[in-house]
Amino acid sequence: MKKVLIDCDPGIDDALALALIAGSRDALDLVGVTTVGGNVDLSLTTANALALREFLDLGDVPVTPGSAGALLRHTVRATVHGTSGLGTVVLPAPLRGPSPGHAVDFIVDALRAAPGEITLVGVGPLTNLALAVRKEPRVVEWARDIVIMGGSYTRGNHTPAAEFNMLADPEAAAIVFEAGWTVTMVGLDVTLSAVVDTAVLDRMRPLGRLAELLVPGAQSYKEVTDDDGPAIHDACAVAYVLDPSLFTCVPAVVNVETAGIHTRGMTVTDFAVTGRQANALVATALDVPRFWDLMIAAYGRLAARLG
Amino acid sequence: MKKVLIDCDPGIDDALALALIAGSRDALDLVGVTTVGGNVDLSLTTANALALREFLDLGDVPVTPGSAGALLRHTVRATVHGTSGLGTVVLPAPLRGPSPGHAVDFIVDALRAAPGEITLVGVGPLTNLALAVRKEPRVVEWARDIVIMGGSYTRGNHTPAAEFNMLADPEAAAIVFEAGWTVTMVGLDVTLSAVVDTAVLDRMRPLGRLAELLVPGAQSYKEVTDDDGPAIHDACAVAYVLDPSLFTCVPAVVNVETAGIHTRGMTVTDFAVTGRQANALVATALDVPRFWDLMIAAYGRLAARLG
Amino acid sequence: MKKVLIDCDPGIDDALALALIAGSRDALDLVGVTTVGGNVDLSLTTANALALREFLDLGDVPVTPGSAGALLRHTVRATVHGTSGLGTVVLPAPLRGPSPGHAVDFIVDALRAAPGEITLVGVGPLTNLALAVRKEPRVVEWARDIVIMGGSYTRGNHTPAAEFNMLADPEAAAIVFEAGWTVTMVGLDVTLSAVVDTAVLDRMRPLGRLAELLVPGAQSYKEVTDDDGPAIHDACAVAYVLDPSLFTCVPAVVNVETAGIHTRGMTVTDFAVTGRQANALVATALDVPRFWDLMIAAYGRLAARLG
Amino acid sequence: MKKVLIDCDPGIDDALALALIAGSRDALDLVGVTTVGGNVDLSLTTANALALREFLDLGDVPVTPGSAGALLRHTVRATVHGTSGLGTVVLPAPLRGPSPGHAVDFIVDALRAAPGEITLVGVGPLTNLALAVRKEPRVVEWARDIVIMGGSYTRGNHTPAAEFNMLADPEAAAIVFEAGWTVTMVGLDVTLSAVVDTAVLDRMRPLGRLAELLVPGAQSYKEVTDDDGPAIHDACAVAYVLDPSLFTCVPAVVNVETAGIHTRGMTVTDFAVTGRQANALVATALDVPRFWDLMIAAYGRLAARLG
Repeated sequence: MKKVLIDCDPGIDDALALALIAGSRDALDLVGVTTVGGNVDLSLTTANALALREFLDLGDVPVTPGSAGALLRHTVRATVHGTSGLGTVVLPAPLRGPSPGHAVDFIVDALRAAPGEITLVGVGPLTNLALAVRKEPRVVEWARDIVIMGGSYTRGNHTPAAEFNMLADPEAAAIVFEAGWTVTMVGLDVTLSAVVDTAVLDRMRPLGRLAELLVPGAQSYKEVTDDDGPAIHDACAVAYVLDPSLFTCVPAVVNVETAGIHTRGMTVTDFAVTGRQANALVATALDVPRFWDLMIAAYGRLAARLG
Repeated sequence: MKKVLIDCDPGIDDALALALIAGSRDALDLVGVTTVGGNVDLSLTTANALALREFLDLGDVPVTPGSAGALLRHTVRATVHGTSGLGTVVLPAPLRGPSPGHAVDFIVDALRAAPGEITLVGVGPLTNLALAVRKEPRVVEWARDIVIMGGSYTRGNHTPAAEFNMLADPEAAAIVFEAGWTVTMVGLDVTLSAVVDTAVLDRMRPLGRLAELLVPGAQSYKEVTDDDGPAIHDACAVAYVLDPSLFTCVPAVVNVETAGIHTRGMTVTDFAVTGRQANALVATALDVPRFWDLMIAAYGRLAARLG
Repeated sequence: MKKVLIDCDPGIDDALALALIAGSRDALDLVGVTTVGGNVDLSLTTANALALREFLDLGDVPVTPGSAGALLRHTVRATVHGTSGLGTVVLPAPLRGPSPGHAVDFIVDALRAAPGEITLVGVGPLTNLALAVRKEPRVVEWARDIVIMGGSYTRGNHTPAAEFNMLADPEAAAIVFEAGWTVTMVGLDVTLSAVVDTAVLDRMRPLGRLAELLVPGAQSYKEVTDDDGPAIHDACAVAYVLDPSLFTCVPAVVNVETAGIHTRGMTVTDFAVTGRQANALVATALDVPRFWDLMIAAYGRLAARLG
Repeated sequence: MKKVLIDCDPGIDDALALALIAGSRDALDLVGVTTVGGNVDLSLTTANALALREFLDLGDVPVTPGSAGALLRHTVRATVHGTSGLGTVVLPAPLRGPSPGHAVDFIVDALRAAPGEITLVGVGPLTNLALAVRKEPRVVEWARDIVIMGGSYTRGNHTPAAEFNMLADPEAAAIVFEAGWTVTMVGLDVTLSAVVDTAVLDRMRPLGRLAELLVPGAQSYKEVTDDDGPAIHDACAVAYVLDPSLFTCVPAVVNVETAGIHTRGMTVTDFAVTGRQANALVATALDVPRFWDLMIAAYGRLAARLG
């Protein structure tokens, strides 16, 4: 059992990542969900996290809201997720509210309470994680691992240079990458290969109530992109925690550009690490068939539970 | 009585500012001292704050340590304060330690508990205040006022463009100035006129035990600068809280440069605010004789108490 | 006799600078006028330079047009000079046109032909001078001296940080300051003290035809500024060539900011040059009464000639 | 017959590009070679161009030296070309020297003399071309086309973000891309597929005297890179002029980053040009077999001539 704390901004692909966690009870112990403004505003990402906790049968895991906006300047939103953040999916209103307190304190306290045990998974802008690092630098030692969905070593998606989560808070991303730990970066280079194509959709359709989230989620996402099908970015980071062997990963020095005119938020990735300390393990390839096998198996277990 | 919370990095001039507060008991209610890495490392600024609490008879006001370094990147230190942070002054070791918890939480909780009542005084790098703003944006509404020693609308001191406190954490300064409140900026433009000259020194010498802090503090500072005498920057911010009429203040839009090659940390000050919302009230002149009268009167009251 | 080559963008204050040259025949040998887009477009600055050559009886000195815009990006214009560039002043149409060729070649050829003899005076954006430096790096050795009107070591005028000529082409300014010579920087710090007040105006009024340029020039400028009277920036640079003793000058390292968000074009001036090679001699004070004596004397000589 | 003017910094791959021109006499009319500091210093790039003119039998085409360094700041050199710039290749000393004058004037005059006829090929830092654009903006109209080897829409080679020619003068590159024409960008994305592998080498070996340049050139290049074989970047730009059908090209907006900390010189390429004016045609794929057929055919013709 790996202890996992996920910081997220649901978000359709965040929802699919939470569903993967929910379907992986035997492997993952979810100690908390923290929310951040990102794909949509914090109030919506929190509301969606609460609705998902109940819909996905995540039990009484605490959902703790955090930062509404970036450390510095502009708030960037991702229209691809629709006004609610979940596209056309409408979930039952949640019965329970968020935990008191702030995501940053939740993260710090959880890590302090279980040093060396918890893997942080960041699938939104890294504002909460950066603030946690700055408020309590020892989280860097306490974390077992940190895995993010974000960045790219080739091209971006929100701008030609920057991936959305990084662009949404470049300074936070810089703080996280420079904090002294090794960040596993699951970026667009691999997540864009995790596409829900027709075959995958056919495997999702029979999944009962869960399919009501997965199928329209994937489809509404698809409608607003040019791609073959929707890439479900965030679930890749969770999949890495479940089975790192799905990914090829390469050590690198990643610097987040904070000063460029055209390159803010770019994860500038240098694989020439000889004689330098790598600060990242960068995913460069994904075994797509095995990835979908893992996904569908977990979704199947969850669907069986949800009915 | 004005409630005051001071965030500081003692530092010689921080010590003189705390002494001004200690000598102004009838006017100021000090609700807390928070510390930040700045002039010297956080461990020293905290130790100095603790020693000063006892030496200056500040009672049981909580001293809560906060951020060790800047939000992003480089740590900058001010060698002018010597290795201890207090120049040649050696204070008795303090008997009591710091409060538990973190400065950021102390600031947030104090303001939440007394909305509209507390004036924040920031005389170090603005890291703690920026983190408080980001962790709990409502501190901006809850604060009665915010007064900082920092910046300049002409030239800097640590670089030609930037004053030390701003340079030490430009991103934090940018967050504080952009937070939505009106920051009173007591910068080098006025603090450099608050010089301890021979006449002022003569008024400090008779102040008993307190003179043991004030006189060598001022002198050790002087030794390492080219100036006529030491400017005691931080006390000016406290003096503003005590008597704003000592200062001429002008509304302005202040932007903190975070991207320049030669200008990081500069407080770019635009007085042409017509049609725009000013975010700062910038001190442009100080009534120096009245300032020293206020200072010496307070120091006299404190000296009488300390013996 | 000092040989002078002036690169300018007339511009009211450029006109007054040219008039100072025209009235200083015994001291200055004007080898050429080159024009640059700046206060107004290149076509107008060239047309104005041609009209001024005849109106001011500058003989057959060549007027050679140069760069229309900045090296990089935005063109900035100074509305203070009106649509024509000369405010309300209307000069007779010139009979002769510009010289063939380009200002950059004119500058390079003139300096090559008289190494060590020519003082460059730049009173507009430094585009032409920067291109000359890059096209023929030896101009740096060939120039006797370079004196510019531009920059500031305190505050700007076009933005809070930047003076107009520097902001209009920061990259060109950076090239010129980094070229290896010592640039005499006559900036706002002194030129703002060269104000045409009522007393000065009274000394200009009796100057016959010349007064038709000087008086309305000064007045139209005044109308659009908040200042006591118009500062006639550019003439200060020529005055420096005529009599450096009018100015206090201090060696400094000047870096032109090219990357800041709020500080582009700022001349960041560091007077702490110990152990470093100064690249500038920065004017810090002007003897205003003696300046006006020099100005009015030259204007008087010119007026006598013009009738 | 297409008129071609090549601006280059030989450089091994520049030599192979010049050899391609020399072997394509029936299709290309080379009107001039201009040199720029880049792979090695200007004195060496000029000396190499002169030696190549004679070795490759380029006749009396003028070789005109230009800019020694970048517009702004640092000079960057590419050690991969060895100290001479031609690796281990030693050519006979040239009998004739360079043309008088400066590359910038040569470019401007050549284009003025044959408006609409000349294709500019830039295979070094773009300093000369940028200065030409700034000195005579009409070169943009006069040029028939402009094709550069440089940049990338994915990753760089000299830094993770920037290709060497762009990094060597980012401001010049920005000027060229923003000048108003459509720049055909033949970047690393395609040139890295133009690798001299064993099969290609076997086709070069029988080429007599020419092989003495091609084979050790390719091999010395290979020794200092990690790649399978050497990519001969520059020749791809000439190949595009000879036969655009070898390349897939896509319209894009290319911005050259000049302000980033980690991204200076990056050609930020946005293919989403709907509703915007593309400023570049970006090569995205190369038909490698046909490319080598074209190369070897040209080299064969040249070898036959050279003996």
